[in-house]
Amino acid sequence: MRETCLVMEADVRVLEERILRDGKNLGGGILKVDSFVNHQVDPLLMDACGKEFAQRFALVGATKILTAEISGIAPALTTAIHLGLPVVYARKTKPITMPDQVYLTLAPSHTKGRMVELIVSPEYLANGEKVLIIDDFLASGQTILGLARLAEAAGSRIVGIGALIEKTFEGGRAALKTLGVPIESLACITSLEDDQILFGEPL
Amino acid sequence: MRETCLVMEADVRVLEERILRDGKNLGGGILKVDSFVNHQVDPLLMDACGKEFAQRFALVGATKILTAEISGIAPALTTAIHLGLPVVYARKTKPITMPDQVYLTLAPSHTKGRMVELIVSPEYLANGEKVLIIDDFLASGQTILGLARLAEAAGSRIVGIGALIEKTFEGGRAALKTLGVPIESLACITSLEDDQILFGEPL
Repeated sequence: MRETCLVMEADVRVLEERILRDGKNLGGGILKVDSFVNHQVDPLLMDACGKEFAQRFALVGATKILTAEISGIAPALTTAIHLGLPVVYARKTKPITMPDQVYLTLAPSHTKGRMVELIVSPEYLANGEKVLIIDDFLASGQTILGLARLAEAAGSRIVGIGALIEKTFEGGRAALKTLGVPIESLACITSLEDDQILFGEPL
Repeated sequence: MRETCLVMEADVRVLEERILRDGKNLGGGILKVDSFVNHQVDPLLMDACGKEFAQRFALVGATKILTAEISGIAPALTTAIHLGLPVVYARKTKPITMPDQVYLTLAPSHTKGRMVELIVSPEYLANGEKVLIIDDFLASGQTILGLARLAEAAGSRIVGIGALIEKTFEGGRAALKTLGVPIESLACITSLEDDQILFGEPL
């Protein structure tokens, strides 16, 4: 089973190559990466991506990493391992272990076609925290904006945003500009039209 | 924030110590470990747990790691990093990227108080796979039995079961005995009565 595990090393283009090899353009702007990111995870690729994020955000002074369950957990965790920082994942349903008073916001889910809740306990997001947001996709930016609202509600400050895969044609980077923080994506897709997967630079 | 990150090294008792320090006995058999496992994750502790699982299961010949979203992802991923194996997490809702034909089973959720679906795509669980199951808790064993049913439906064979935290008083180990595979837990809780957290040996 080792053939599914690639090492990114210094060359971040290995994620692009993996998307070209194993990603599936399902049409309608949907890229399926279930064989190495979203259902099956390639741990060594994910570790290499975490290492890359850790390098790119080494100097932003983050004290905590924030992501959204479910697909954000893997890249956020490997980034957290390399930065030595705790990671908090916003829940989409409130577990019984969570206090009654929580930070909660709504964000539209592209893949679910409805609004989902993003919930963080005040226990783990404190006033003055410097938050690095890591997620699997940067598409419309709405999930990440939701995470930023949670952080701001807690009195935390966003210091950076990282996504494994950016889809520039959904405009997320522009939506996040108001946050005024560095935004890094490891693979930047400019078009999924005509059954193709085209890479390029962020807009 | 670094004070929340401990290194397990060779001594697996660091997880027990962490549970005693930061775990909360909520009563009714519920142990809250949201500050380092289930909502906020301590990545270095999780990495050390993954390394420990990798050592304990080094010789079982696993070709794939299987877990259930959401809380199983972190320990399964760090184990996968140390074993160099792909990890699949069973979904609880079917994403639009998944084919129509899936492996699906139902398992009772202790913390949700209802049945939840566990769904794996046949794309990532093949005939002949040797599956190591990793999860955060071993309580009644029902989630792990559900994962085992999915693996068996796919023609895979379970070769080991690992859980961060076992609650012996819920009888999960006995329920899993029929699978006939090694079961490893890194912290074994024998009682949560009278506001205490007591550790001991598996039954």
